[in-house]
Amino acid sequence: MQEILVLNGPNLGMLGAREPEVYGHATLDDLRELLEARKTAEQRVEVRQTDDEAELIGWIHEAFRRGCDVILNPAAFTHYSYGLRDAVAMLQGTSRLIEVHISNPHTREAFRHMSTISGVATGVIAGFGFQSYVLALSALTD
Amino acid sequence: MQEILVLNGPNLGMLGAREPEVYGHATLDDLRELLEARKTAEQRVEVRQTDDEAELIGWIHEAFRRGCDVILNPAAFTHYSYGLRDAVAMLQGTSRLIEVHISNPHTREAFRHMSTISGVATGVIAGFGFQSYVLALSALTD
Amino acid sequence: MQEILVLNGPNLGMLGAREPEVYGHATLDDLRELLEARKTAEQRVEVRQTDDEAELIGWIHEAFRRGCDVILNPAAFTHYSYGLRDAVAMLQGTSRLIEVHISNPHTREAFRHMSTISGVATGVIAGFGFQSYVLALSALTD
Amino acid sequence: MQEILVLNGPNLGMLGAREPEVYGHATLDDLRELLEARKTAEQRVEVRQTDDEAELIGWIHEAFRRGCDVILNPAAFTHYSYGLRDAVAMLQGTSRLIEVHISNPHTREAFRHMSTISGVATGVIAGFGFQSYVLALSALTD
Amino acid sequence: MQEILVLNGPNLGMLGAREPEVYGHATLDDLRELLEARKTAEQRVEVRQTDDEAELIGWIHEAFRRGCDVILNPAAFTHYSYGLRDAVAMLQGTSRLIEVHISNPHTREAFRHMSTISGVATGVIAGFGFQSYVLALSALTD
Amino acid sequence: MQEILVLNGPNLGMLGAREPEVYGHATLDDLRELLEARKTAEQRVEVRQTDDEAELIGWIHEAFRRGCDVILNPAAFTHYSYGLRDAVAMLQGTSRLIEVHISNPHTREAFRHMSTISGVATGVIAGFGFQSYVLALSALTD
Amino acid sequence: MQEILVLNGPNLGMLGAREPEVYGHATLDDLRELLEARKTAEQRVEVRQTDDEAELIGWIHEAFRRGCDVILNPAAFTHYSYGLRDAVAMLQGTSRLIEVHISNPHTREAFRHMSTISGVATGVIAGFGFQSYVLALSALTD
Amino acid sequence: MQEILVLNGPNLGMLGAREPEVYGHATLDDLRELLEARKTAEQRVEVRQTDDEAELIGWIHEAFRRGCDVILNPAAFTHYSYGLRDAVAMLQGTSRLIEVHISNPHTREAFRHMSTISGVATGVIAGFGFQSYVLALSALTD
Amino acid sequence: MQEILVLNGPNLGMLGAREPEVYGHATLDDLRELLEARKTAEQRVEVRQTDDEAELIGWIHEAFRRGCDVILNPAAFTHYSYGLRDAVAMLQGTSRLIEVHISNPHTREAFRHMSTISGVATGVIAGFGFQSYVLALSALTD
Amino acid sequence: MQEILVLNGPNLGMLGAREPEVYGHATLDDLRELLEARKTAEQRVEVRQTDDEAELIGWIHEAFRRGCDVILNPAAFTHYSYGLRDAVAMLQGTSRLIEVHISNPHTREAFRHMSTISGVATGVIAGFGFQSYVLALSALTD
Amino acid sequence: MQEILVLNGPNLGMLGAREPEVYGHATLDDLRELLEARKTAEQRVEVRQTDDEAELIGWIHEAFRRGCDVILNPAAFTHYSYGLRDAVAMLQGTSRLIEVHISNPHTREAFRHMSTISGVATGVIAGFGFQSYVLALSALTD
Amino acid sequence: MQEILVLNGPNLGMLGAREPEVYGHATLDDLRELLEARKTAEQRVEVRQTDDEAELIGWIHEAFRRGCDVILNPAAFTHYSYGLRDAVAMLQGTSRLIEVHISNPHTREAFRHMSTISGVATGVIAGFGFQSYVLALSALTD
Repeated sequence: MQEILVLNGPNLGMLGAREPEVYGHATLDDLRELLEARKTAEQRVEVRQTDDEAELIGWIHEAFRRGCDVILNPAAFTHYSYGLRDAVAMLQGTSRLIEVHISNPHTREAFRHMSTISGVATGVIAGFGFQSYVLALSALTD
Repeated sequence: MQEILVLNGPNLGMLGAREPEVYGHATLDDLRELLEARKTAEQRVEVRQTDDEAELIGWIHEAFRRGCDVILNPAAFTHYSYGLRDAVAMLQGTSRLIEVHISNPHTREAFRHMSTISGVATGVIAGFGFQSYVLALSALTD
Repeated sequence: MQEILVLNGPNLGMLGAREPEVYGHATLDDLRELLEARKTAEQRVEVRQTDDEAELIGWIHEAFRRGCDVILNPAAFTHYSYGLRDAVAMLQGTSRLIEVHISNPHTREAFRHMSTISGVATGVIAGFGFQSYVLALSALTD
Repeated sequence: MQEILVLNGPNLGMLGAREPEVYGHATLDDLRELLEARKTAEQRVEVRQTDDEAELIGWIHEAFRRGCDVILNPAAFTHYSYGLRDAVAMLQGTSRLIEVHISNPHTREAFRHMSTISGVATGVIAGFGFQSYVLALSALTD
Repeated sequence: MQEILVLNGPNLGMLGAREPEVYGHATLDDLRELLEARKTAEQRVEVRQTDDEAELIGWIHEAFRRGCDVILNPAAFTHYSYGLRDAVAMLQGTSRLIEVHISNPHTREAFRHMSTISGVATGVIAGFGFQSYVLALSALTD
Repeated sequence: MQEILVLNGPNLGMLGAREPEVYGHATLDDLRELLEARKTAEQRVEVRQTDDEAELIGWIHEAFRRGCDVILNPAAFTHYSYGLRDAVAMLQGTSRLIEVHISNPHTREAFRHMSTISGVATGVIAGFGFQSYVLALSALTD
Repeated sequence: MQEILVLNGPNLGMLGAREPEVYGHATLDDLRELLEARKTAEQRVEVRQTDDEAELIGWIHEAFRRGCDVILNPAAFTHYSYGLRDAVAMLQGTSRLIEVHISNPHTREAFRHMSTISGVATGVIAGFGFQSYVLALSALTD
Repeated sequence: MQEILVLNGPNLGMLGAREPEVYGHATLDDLRELLEARKTAEQRVEVRQTDDEAELIGWIHEAFRRGCDVILNPAAFTHYSYGLRDAVAMLQGTSRLIEVHISNPHTREAFRHMSTISGVATGVIAGFGFQSYVLALSALTD
Repeated sequence: MQEILVLNGPNLGMLGAREPEVYGHATLDDLRELLEARKTAEQRVEVRQTDDEAELIGWIHEAFRRGCDVILNPAAFTHYSYGLRDAVAMLQGTSRLIEVHISNPHTREAFRHMSTISGVATGVIAGFGFQSYVLALSALTD
Repeated sequence: MQEILVLNGPNLGMLGAREPEVYGHATLDDLRELLEARKTAEQRVEVRQTDDEAELIGWIHEAFRRGCDVILNPAAFTHYSYGLRDAVAMLQGTSRLIEVHISNPHTREAFRHMSTISGVATGVIAGFGFQSYVLALSALTD
Repeated sequence: MQEILVLNGPNLGMLGAREPEVYGHATLDDLRELLEARKTAEQRVEVRQTDDEAELIGWIHEAFRRGCDVILNPAAFTHYSYGLRDAVAMLQGTSRLIEVHISNPHTREAFRHMSTISGVATGVIAGFGFQSYVLALSALTD
Repeated sequence: MQEILVLNGPNLGMLGAREPEVYGHATLDDLRELLEARKTAEQRVEVRQTDDEAELIGWIHEAFRRGCDVILNPAAFTHYSYGLRDAVAMLQGTSRLIEVHISNPHTREAFRHMSTISGVATGVIAGFGFQSYVLALSALTD
């Protein structure tokens, strides 16, 4: 059985309500359903969200200990949380971690062009709405 | 009834004890009293403080859901919390949010001249001690 | 009697005609009326405008000599007039000077994010339309 | 029938021979086969490569005229070809273009962290070897 | 009748005497004659010069009120006068303003490569001596 | 007979189809006709376009050998082609070369504010649509 | 009795498991034992760790209130937490705070060369593994 | 007879009253007297002051026309007035111009370390109070 | 037999005609003759030139496949062609590549001080006219 | 026997006389005594000082040849001497070198925040007065 | 008796021979004579030169110990010797030190615009040839 | 007879012992032998080394006076010694000076990419081990 943690950073709990012209109307529950439908029989997918940097770091530690793969949408933490980066760096050589973004950060404000995470991620997928997660799931399957 | 959340960021719980030559000797309780005395009969004011970025983000979400106006002293989060910025950006078009500072950040260290919040705030008031909050209250009244 | 000079920099004489989507349709005369209505009996308020850096510097000198408080909207001079800054610095310890802006400069072009004045002002109020001046008046009253 | 152009920039014709520790041993022909195997019955996929900026720009023009979707690995052009960027910008609103990279540029030299293309691409997928192309194909399918 | 103001910034009153190897020996009066000779019967051209930022701003205001087109050689104000820029920005949608330079600023000192005006001008013409003005006149004619 | 080469860089072959809100609906053939109509009897004008940096450099060499004047719209090459710049620099003292732009680059993205060509061009004309070329033709006539 | 808080920031709870080639195989419990063995009879040492910025800030507040000295390994917070910096600044004149690092940040990635804490710390010790803490303890003893 | 214009920029009319810990208590009249006492029989010295950039530029033009030497304290104009710089550049080869400062700008705020004037001045003298002018007078004598 | 490709980038086909005060009057044919005269009996030297980035990249690929050593004068491509850099990087460990320049780029414009190639070249020789090539030949001989 | 060279850079011979509010009143002889008192029986400590970069480099060479450990206070050389850095880099893998500072450079001028040495030192200790040396001695003992 | 050390940095021993178009043909001996002729009866002037940073620092120490005033031409050390700066900083409050330059550094290469010394000097005099020293002598006399 | 000084900067006396993976195992004596073997009968070559900036500057002065050509490996002085640069600049028009490096600085740390010397050297040769010197000798022969 392949365990996959799908971890979401700050403000993503507001999906559906927050700036729908950027993020669409679907909610995290819709994401849960979508990934359940798309995962293989060999995969167990768990979707979590937090606004708390420490909790998110703790989940990365959990993935490290349990050997889970991770799909991470770090949201705004992308741009400043070196604490999250250090946690992600621990996974290298142990688990795979894919950084995903719902929108394409490079078409938005300049501060969104910089990621502390990309340099320690296995790969990056950005700009496809919730499909970014599905593609990441697919990348962890092949 | 106009609900106004008065939200205070990290280290502001130490007001009165912390660097009194910069921040004065009054405490958050003094601030609560002051705002109670100054608010109109139509206003309900609630003063909160936290050192926790996630909790502060959660309070902005609450303001979004309840349609409250916000007076926000983001303290040191001003200078790096893009997570807080993303939360504040959700309020645009729904509630008003006024960024306040007790001292004038431009007369202090260079890193305090940069604000992640100002670009998504309704307005900014800085440099008047606790009166910064009173002026913000007044701005939300007129 | 508290004398307050309300000084306005370049292009603000065109208020009402200039980019009304940014600055609104009210004119400097409307501002005069508004401040007359809002001032206390102990205050005398004088609203002036100039496109001339030297004249604006001269008015700051006048405030210094007469001991007036100042509400200053430096407009575009904000971003480059170190001559104005040096004049404002003279007031420190003598009079109070509040920098006001009709719109919030941080939501506009990048060059408007930098102020030569803020580092020598008593406080800053930005983003409330003409109410920025009223709040400044109130700050000088309390 | 959905036409998809899979366009590859400079030095990618050397795949298999060039720095195999970064790019692996598979060649463009392997990529052709892989995408043939993975495409749906409704898709026609055409894999091309060139070291010539003008030819690559011409292929983007062709995609614009024929209404094809594009999977683009701009290789080193990513970092300086504003000519390619201007061509890609033409597709916005007409076709989708997905920027792909075999390796994750953020784990390599600093000059590879900057992309002229990302700001005008529909989405970005990087770091999965040839699977980056398969994921892009999948993104254009759903 | 098309009214065209030809406005010249600081030190241009010294034309003919100032650095003739850069600016040539002709004077502003020669410019007046040249433009009189070249204008159409439908055009009225008025050439003015000032070293005074406030006066130059005032002339832009006049153009705004009278609906004149403008040919502006901002001279050294090009590089720092945001006050002039704000005035020019008022013309957008009302009058056309063409920024002209006698010499090509990009072949001179680095500080001359930056213009506060170009971003709010209709067009820019530089490097043709007094012919820069004639070309601008022509651009306002066609 | 004055020979004038009118050289156009990448993506300008798509004029009429590409971002018509920026570049208008007219095509290069319209430009050819326009310049034919405006040239004097003493002038021969030849309009060319290429997406190929090497071909464009070759045409500048041709102008050097034949002593032609040049009207050059370097399009995106403006911002990075030092190869083109070196070619243009050869013309200094031999032929005149005028850099033209259809739109005003200073009102667009930041990367368009930098030109490798302007420092070695005779003059620059930007922002007048196809009239930019007509003005350049006129500059080469007077 | 001298109370010393030994505070550790994010990811340091994973010591022993995380990148052992950088941080070694010893754990926080080993650190606790080591400091117990090395402290004087007059010292009470308490070792804590958290991934939570707010909790770490709270511990600094506790040190301020109780008058404890502090040995702080801010880990990744070093590079962005101005909230932590503001808390540490409160200690100046009251308690001593020594910033320690297990590895030498200057031999690692560029972003690790910048510390928000050093400017408000009593001293800095970096590069000696767990001995960095022992040296800090010694510095607080002498 | 050697004519020497001693020109003073913005806020220097307030000498004696303005920040006396930086500028001392002496006034411009004291400066006039001092220079009268120190000049040679062959020298005529005229001390002027203005807050007006245009007037100061005009005085430089006057020096150019009359062939006077100049002692210039550009005050805050030092740091941004390229208009003044262009005027001063006209004097090269005709008159000598010495830039003087009462205090040493390099011991003050960072923005005071940059001078637009020094690159076109004959020489620079800074940090000697009013004696800076006397030394400049002496430099023009020898 | 040692095969050596001597590859020359854009505008070097104009040697002899182009800026002779910088590059001298000798042509590429003179270079061919010079190298023929200087090579050893064991060496075969082939001198090529192109203005085409793709062709130059292709020649590097050829050197990679054939195991030739390379003397490369990248001309203006030095300063921006990451495509050329990626090709050159392929040679490391297989062939030697020496970057040569006719003039010393560090005595010329600032943009010429940066090389994308030097970091992946075996060595660099600059400033000796055609002798730079002869020295490179010699370096490949010893 | 463990040989330890304690090397001190420029101006440290003036300790006791130089800026005592920063460096205290103790002299290098006091330091010698202090280290003699604190060293173990197995250690031989030799304290030297020089203002001469070449002499200091020579002492590092001596440490390399003799296999001594080094305590280095590079003083102002910290901020610019790459010659000293290259010497220190030779010790890596052979001897340990600890960079010490009497005061904490991060609480002083900005130019003191940059060290050419830290990236090649074993560890860094700063801010403890002469105790910085004692701690370094202790680090070399354990 | 007022002792004045006139200290000269690297390459100034070559005066007369070195770049005479910048530095003139006079030698250090000419300077000695000139200052002897100009000093007052109360002054003793000693002119020294060294290419050695340590020797120059030592002379500043000597001035500190003997209470001499200093005229310092730091030559190229101006731009990088923080060791010299630290020595000069010792003089503050004890002796006066005047930084002199023969030519005006602001009219030369960009690296000469930055001085490590100016921020700790009493005053600065630049651009008057040997007269710079005479003026400095005069400044120390008044 | 052609006199050639071969001057080597700091730490190069340790060649053979210092970082042999970068610099190889050969010593300066090996270099002496090598150059003796390769020089022509008309050349006298003298190899010197110093860690002392002043001594190295003195040797450049000697070359200037004696009219020697120079082969200079400035080692770490390359990156900061403007004193050395000023000395080298004296040679222009008198002697030739070739800057050599054993390794290719562009493949090493970023601070090694900047040279104060290259802009005033006749030519630069880097990356060929001791052969860099031989090539320089050859360049001075032809």
